[in-house]
Amino acid sequence: MPYVDRERQRITDDLLRWLRIPAISALPEHTTDVRASAELCATLFRSAGLENVVVLETGGHPAVYGDWLHAGTDAPTALVYGHHDVQPVDPLELWQHPPFEPVIVPDGEHGAECRARGAIDDKGQVLYEIEAVRGLLAAEGRLPVNVKFLVEGEEEVGSPNFEDLLMRERTRLACDVVVVSDTGMWAIDVPSTCVGMRGLVTFDVQVRTATGDLHSGMFGGAVPNPVHLLARLVADLHDERGRVTLPGFYDRVRPLTSSEQASLDGLPFDEAAWMANAGVGRLEGEAGQSTLARVGYRPTAEVVGFGAGYTGDGIKTIVPAEGGCKVTFRLVADQDPAEIDASFRSWLGARIPDGVELTVTPHGSVAPALTPVDHPAVGALCRAIETVWGRAPLFTREGGSGPEESLGRLLAAPVLFLGVGLPGDRLHAPNERMVMDQFWNGLLAAGELWHELAAALRP
Amino acid sequence: MPYVDRERQRITDDLLRWLRIPAISALPEHTTDVRASAELCATLFRSAGLENVVVLETGGHPAVYGDWLHAGTDAPTALVYGHHDVQPVDPLELWQHPPFEPVIVPDGEHGAECRARGAIDDKGQVLYEIEAVRGLLAAEGRLPVNVKFLVEGEEEVGSPNFEDLLMRERTRLACDVVVVSDTGMWAIDVPSTCVGMRGLVTFDVQVRTATGDLHSGMFGGAVPNPVHLLARLVADLHDERGRVTLPGFYDRVRPLTSSEQASLDGLPFDEAAWMANAGVGRLEGEAGQSTLARVGYRPTAEVVGFGAGYTGDGIKTIVPAEGGCKVTFRLVADQDPAEIDASFRSWLGARIPDGVELTVTPHGSVAPALTPVDHPAVGALCRAIETVWGRAPLFTREGGSGPEESLGRLLAAPVLFLGVGLPGDRLHAPNERMVMDQFWNGLLAAGELWHELAAALRP
Repeated sequence: MPYVDRERQRITDDLLRWLRIPAISALPEHTTDVRASAELCATLFRSAGLENVVVLETGGHPAVYGDWLHAGTDAPTALVYGHHDVQPVDPLELWQHPPFEPVIVPDGEHGAECRARGAIDDKGQVLYEIEAVRGLLAAEGRLPVNVKFLVEGEEEVGSPNFEDLLMRERTRLACDVVVVSDTGMWAIDVPSTCVGMRGLVTFDVQVRTATGDLHSGMFGGAVPNPVHLLARLVADLHDERGRVTLPGFYDRVRPLTSSEQASLDGLPFDEAAWMANAGVGRLEGEAGQSTLARVGYRPTAEVVGFGAGYTGDGIKTIVPAEGGCKVTFRLVADQDPAEIDASFRSWLGARIPDGVELTVTPHGSVAPALTPVDHPAVGALCRAIETVWGRAPLFTREGGSGPEESLGRLLAAPVLFLGVGLPGDRLHAPNERMVMDQFWNGLLAAGELWHELAAALRP
Repeated sequence: MPYVDRERQRITDDLLRWLRIPAISALPEHTTDVRASAELCATLFRSAGLENVVVLETGGHPAVYGDWLHAGTDAPTALVYGHHDVQPVDPLELWQHPPFEPVIVPDGEHGAECRARGAIDDKGQVLYEIEAVRGLLAAEGRLPVNVKFLVEGEEEVGSPNFEDLLMRERTRLACDVVVVSDTGMWAIDVPSTCVGMRGLVTFDVQVRTATGDLHSGMFGGAVPNPVHLLARLVADLHDERGRVTLPGFYDRVRPLTSSEQASLDGLPFDEAAWMANAGVGRLEGEAGQSTLARVGYRPTAEVVGFGAGYTGDGIKTIVPAEGGCKVTFRLVADQDPAEIDASFRSWLGARIPDGVELTVTPHGSVAPALTPVDHPAVGALCRAIETVWGRAPLFTREGGSGPEESLGRLLAAPVLFLGVGLPGDRLHAPNERMVMDQFWNGLLAAGELWHELAAALRP
């Protein structure tokens, strides 16, 4: 694409400019930065040729909308989804370059890579979609499909206002297919596309056993200890086969289709390398399941935090009065967040003895998402990826949970995942990177996808 | 005792003066206050007539020594032990009077009470021992026994330098009996004396399962979760009968003598009132044991803190990389801290899978203490208490653990407990108090005890 060769430096400069904005949505002190990031996104939209560009206010950080709708009423409409906010950067001392002073490192694992918070998650992946629009409009004067962009600013804090926004703007956002530009591939030489994402249900569980901490010498041995009680709950959450013990937890888990199973079996997997990348010395989980199935295809329960009693230096001889833990469930199709919520509360209730105060606070839920692999739009995506990477993609599922489920459900459209992230990209961690070859390929594939979609979805 | 009536105001003023010094040994910013408290203690010693008064340096906060050794070589020598340091005062907002602005509240639960941090634990209890010396020397010109005082400044931080001090000063501290002035009574109308204190062995247990926190969507389900592992450990620490599961944990527990059992059975105990005082809604513990046995006579395991993963607001979708808990064991005679240490480490080792890093840090241990109830010095103490309170004391054990075991062992002397604390004194908590009638009775009983000891221990 001569456009890319000609524009390479200008595109790179735009990328670095955007990455310099510390749009950390989790930290109130960065509120104006998130807005600045939205404004720059709008500017990039306009200069690329997108129209009707608007910063959409939400109850929290703003999203950005733009479209190009001149492909004709016969042509399908694609909605590109991404986000412009980023994760916090702690621990800062582990970054080799400051997280908001982006650099292109020429000799990375796969050649040149861009190092910065947000490089791959998700500004880089939004930018190649924008540049694909700009390039096609420059080269051909038009796009083969109608395109809409929605780039939100709260993905890294769980998209708390996203469903409201989708509901409010569903006319403006109406589309035939959603293209999510926020995921990854199996490996640089093993292209893949995600067809499912796990759902997520989360709870804060607090127990109180006394009005105040008690002297462990004077009271210890006869009063309830919230650490012991919470520990029994957490220990009870899995059986000895590593399976979640909520009654009926697995009842709705949909079996893999034969083509999904073939993809899963065909994914090259180096367990030792995966462990080294994770930094773990052992693997464990649901009995009878492979590591790949455990992280992407099976539901899980993970307690992500536990705080009770004295956790400072040394020892304090108390029986603590209260404590809590944060329990999360990753769900797969067709598990229902509301059912899991009810099941967990009843499971908990049966385990909290009289005389102990229990408080359960839900912290948001996302249903699992699954795109039917035989949908014509999935075929179009596969062809676009094969054209650019030279190999048809394998189907994968992502273990994470995002707003993709809301998009598919509220816009009633299939969700495609075109993402160029790689396993070593360190998203949410220090030294986040984007491999530049993947970025340029993403730009090409985005354009290919519109041609393929125009053909596949023509009425 | 006319001395007390005459000196009442001056003694009260000295009490309040001492209590104004915020001698919090746990907080480095109060280091000079702990020293000021030691200096005032030395001043009180000297003005009472004690001799050879010296502030004894340790590796931490200073102790204070003084003696009066003119009772003759035939007379026994008693060593009075107490401490001049105090607990921290958090949460400050719950104090009705500022903790270091002591006041005498005239209409407390049992008449006048002194409200301040350290009122009962332990400055008040040291002061009545000093004033008993002053009073007897003023009235009789001599004491019936040789008396030594050792008032340390690190009791509230676990007496880390106390054994070293005892070893270094054992010639100066040599005695026939130790009188600990730092404990309590059953009730204002049920005098009692402690004949045993539980020992304490404490550990910080840390596990690391990965080099860093991992995204729970991408890794959750296949990597070890330190919260789950620690929770299983804590849950495993007790069996379903509430008994500690370390092999052989109960083997050395000495059965109660018939006179101890009779005292235990004779202690009036209002379980509902005890629960209300503790602020708990239920009781639990070792099966087959009463609440009183559970808190004083039986060994326990209490996990006093558990910290792992994310414990802030909301949810962070991670599999944490590390976590820890603080495990404490209260021991009773004749359990051996070194044996429990070895047993716990081997118990832990058997439960930590390969590929997980375990770090166990011991945080000090104290052996359990038990004074033989048939020792003549115990008889002397019982008569002194009966003289003042009008009832012979019942024998109790304290659930707490202190430096009393070191005193008895290193000085090879029986340990007596003359203490006037009451259940509602809120030691270590906001609004600590000392009932003034108990203080004045303690002063009288301290003098009576020396007369009784002189008679009982005369060779």
